[in-house]
Amino acid sequence: MVERRKPIPVSEAVSRVVGLAKTGLTERTHINEAHGRTLGEDIVAVHPVPPFDRSPYDGFAIRAADSSEASRDNPQTFTVIETIGAGYVASKEVREFEAVRIMTGAKIPDQCDAVVMLELVSETVEHGVEQMTIKRPFKSGDNISFKGEETSEGTVLIRKGKKINPGVIAVLATFGYETVEVVRQPIIGVFATGSELLDVSEELQPGKIRNSNAHMVAAQVERAGAQVKMFGKLTDDLESCYQAIKEALKDIDMLITTGGVSVGDFDYLPAVYEKLGAEVLFNKIAMRPGSVTTVAHLDGTFLFGLSGNPSACYVGFELFVRPVVNIQLFVDKPHLLPVQARLTEDFLKPNPFTRFVRSKLTFDGGSLLVTPSGFNKSGAVTSLAATDCMIVLPGGTRGFQQGDVVKVLLLESTEGSEWPWG
Amino acid sequence: MVERRKPIPVSEAVSRVVGLAKTGLTERTHINEAHGRTLGEDIVAVHPVPPFDRSPYDGFAIRAADSSEASRDNPQTFTVIETIGAGYVASKEVREFEAVRIMTGAKIPDQCDAVVMLELVSETVEHGVEQMTIKRPFKSGDNISFKGEETSEGTVLIRKGKKINPGVIAVLATFGYETVEVVRQPIIGVFATGSELLDVSEELQPGKIRNSNAHMVAAQVERAGAQVKMFGKLTDDLESCYQAIKEALKDIDMLITTGGVSVGDFDYLPAVYEKLGAEVLFNKIAMRPGSVTTVAHLDGTFLFGLSGNPSACYVGFELFVRPVVNIQLFVDKPHLLPVQARLTEDFLKPNPFTRFVRSKLTFDGGSLLVTPSGFNKSGAVTSLAATDCMIVLPGGTRGFQQGDVVKVLLLESTEGSEWPWG
Repeated sequence: MVERRKPIPVSEAVSRVVGLAKTGLTERTHINEAHGRTLGEDIVAVHPVPPFDRSPYDGFAIRAADSSEASRDNPQTFTVIETIGAGYVASKEVREFEAVRIMTGAKIPDQCDAVVMLELVSETVEHGVEQMTIKRPFKSGDNISFKGEETSEGTVLIRKGKKINPGVIAVLATFGYETVEVVRQPIIGVFATGSELLDVSEELQPGKIRNSNAHMVAAQVERAGAQVKMFGKLTDDLESCYQAIKEALKDIDMLITTGGVSVGDFDYLPAVYEKLGAEVLFNKIAMRPGSVTTVAHLDGTFLFGLSGNPSACYVGFELFVRPVVNIQLFVDKPHLLPVQARLTEDFLKPNPFTRFVRSKLTFDGGSLLVTPSGFNKSGAVTSLAATDCMIVLPGGTRGFQQGDVVKVLLLESTEGSEWPWG
Repeated sequence: MVERRKPIPVSEAVSRVVGLAKTGLTERTHINEAHGRTLGEDIVAVHPVPPFDRSPYDGFAIRAADSSEASRDNPQTFTVIETIGAGYVASKEVREFEAVRIMTGAKIPDQCDAVVMLELVSETVEHGVEQMTIKRPFKSGDNISFKGEETSEGTVLIRKGKKINPGVIAVLATFGYETVEVVRQPIIGVFATGSELLDVSEELQPGKIRNSNAHMVAAQVERAGAQVKMFGKLTDDLESCYQAIKEALKDIDMLITTGGVSVGDFDYLPAVYEKLGAEVLFNKIAMRPGSVTTVAHLDGTFLFGLSGNPSACYVGFELFVRPVVNIQLFVDKPHLLPVQARLTEDFLKPNPFTRFVRSKLTFDGGSLLVTPSGFNKSGAVTSLAATDCMIVLPGGTRGFQQGDVVKVLLLESTEGSEWPWG
């Protein structure tokens, strides 16, 4: 018999899920292991930048007042009393008409207030004494990078929840964060269901296909910034499914299953959720593909029942699992980033329900183009390789034509979005 | 004395570097370790997809001809002779007015040529015999996913050099690639130079700053898909620099140094290149920041002499090192992807030379906006954290104003570009 399920809108489904999502725990990691992780603490400037007045050029530090009369007709000569490499500090006091040879990045001697660039002087040695001559005046402050001019002490530089990119690493190093608090990566268990599934290493057999969903979802888990724990395949037997899932839940933060959520005779997941006592948030969504996507929740743990159809499975992960991972990672905009793009080809299927089309985004100069990934029949696994976004076509619309502007959700962007993007 | 160097255009510098770049070696890895790596072989459909005619729905497989007379007024009843779950195959021959209950994904029995969806039948049991009745005719081929309709055998699905994303993983799993040839990640050594540099763990000292460049570049190396080997700091002494670099070159595919390439008194890298007998491809580029960026080449190994200035170091990596890494990874478009975006604020500095401005890209619906990352003074490390692109302002231009359209190179995109983008 066909169970009747009441479909809910996508936005309602997503809202029910993220409403129960929680932020995660943090842990300390070394700066050299931090790239790609997510900040688990605000990063504060623990000192000003630059930390002292410094020279932005190789040149000579002088007291600007000593140069006030210098001109082409009245060159001013200075005695060079020492040389300061970057990282060293002046050892002598600088007096009238004295200069210090200074390297880029070095600290300006206390008595000096201007730097003359190397290219603007002539250098001579007079009776064994090093000298340099300039033909123009300099003002106090000329060619000095002042203490704190980039960043003053105490400034919050980067917020918790920011994905750590090379620039973040530079900031961490600058402020002495040899270790940094990062968010612990959620551990997501993955089970596949379906007696038609072969392991990837098995030869094809009549009627069977290889299990691609579990591997695909594992990569989506990694892309989302979480860790995967592969549990293999559930059998088509309620009791053993129940035991396997119950056991798995001990070691993981969330569970994903692929397949087994339809209303077919071999779809055991609904019964497993019931037996576990999990709260089913929904089991039917007004969307294509993936209308049977089911999400349940048990003692703070999500059980994502993704469709066994590869394309529906892919979409279900990105719409429901990814924001939960992001919230756990303290990402403040946990949903996929929406943009507008022009279709490069017709997409003529009508859309009785909200439709998600795996697609590829390209740039035409300053505008965005989007191309559905090849043959868009539900289940077409081979079109997934080029996918970096999903077109969203609202329910109740007819087909769309080449040149029409459509909403597109980015899958590879480092930026996210607040809900609703719909 | 100031050494005179002749600056060359950025495009010429990049061209000299990529002209010497070579593709890398490949190695086999397990599918579960492959996400994020780069394909080292073309992926071919070793069987058609679907591999057999299969049912896209839960329903009943029938011989379409048996339904030709079915209508609301003349329902047609079929005897259900068996049930095929996905992964199982029919065990009985299907005769006239017989049907097989079939699950999504299961192989269509040989004698059948249409599937009736579960929702369209009424099921009854008559004298212990399972029956189903339909009220409309079906055509041969209705609701069947035909063997090979997605992909025919032998099709090249994905080319060598493609970065492995979740969709690629799905394709690999579908076709039984339990292991796959990926490109070996180049190993890039990183040395910092500068007596002003403290380790990230050290307390600040007068005149000194922490070594942020080496850590930042290490993260850029990882983002580019290569592996980093940190060698610490070179001293300001020619002979020991020479020995350290000579030794390091034994274990790595490329070398990056940060700092030490200017014409200051403490810049030893040019002398080291000479002593090594390396060919210096250029040591002055008509660009800002990073005009002193130097690239040398010795026995097939690149020695990238990036500037010690953080912003110049960052830019130098992305312009010169990244395409070499990409070429080694067989990426066919190895350069940064250029797009056009509108400036969200004035950038009034004149540009005597090509200027690269670290920036942040945002989407305004379907158009692109770009914002320079905060305080754009050369060396401003704190602005790097938000950077995900670089504005390119051509040499010989005046300042640019809010709303002006500028060229932007994307740093986080999975897509690249052919040269020239300039």
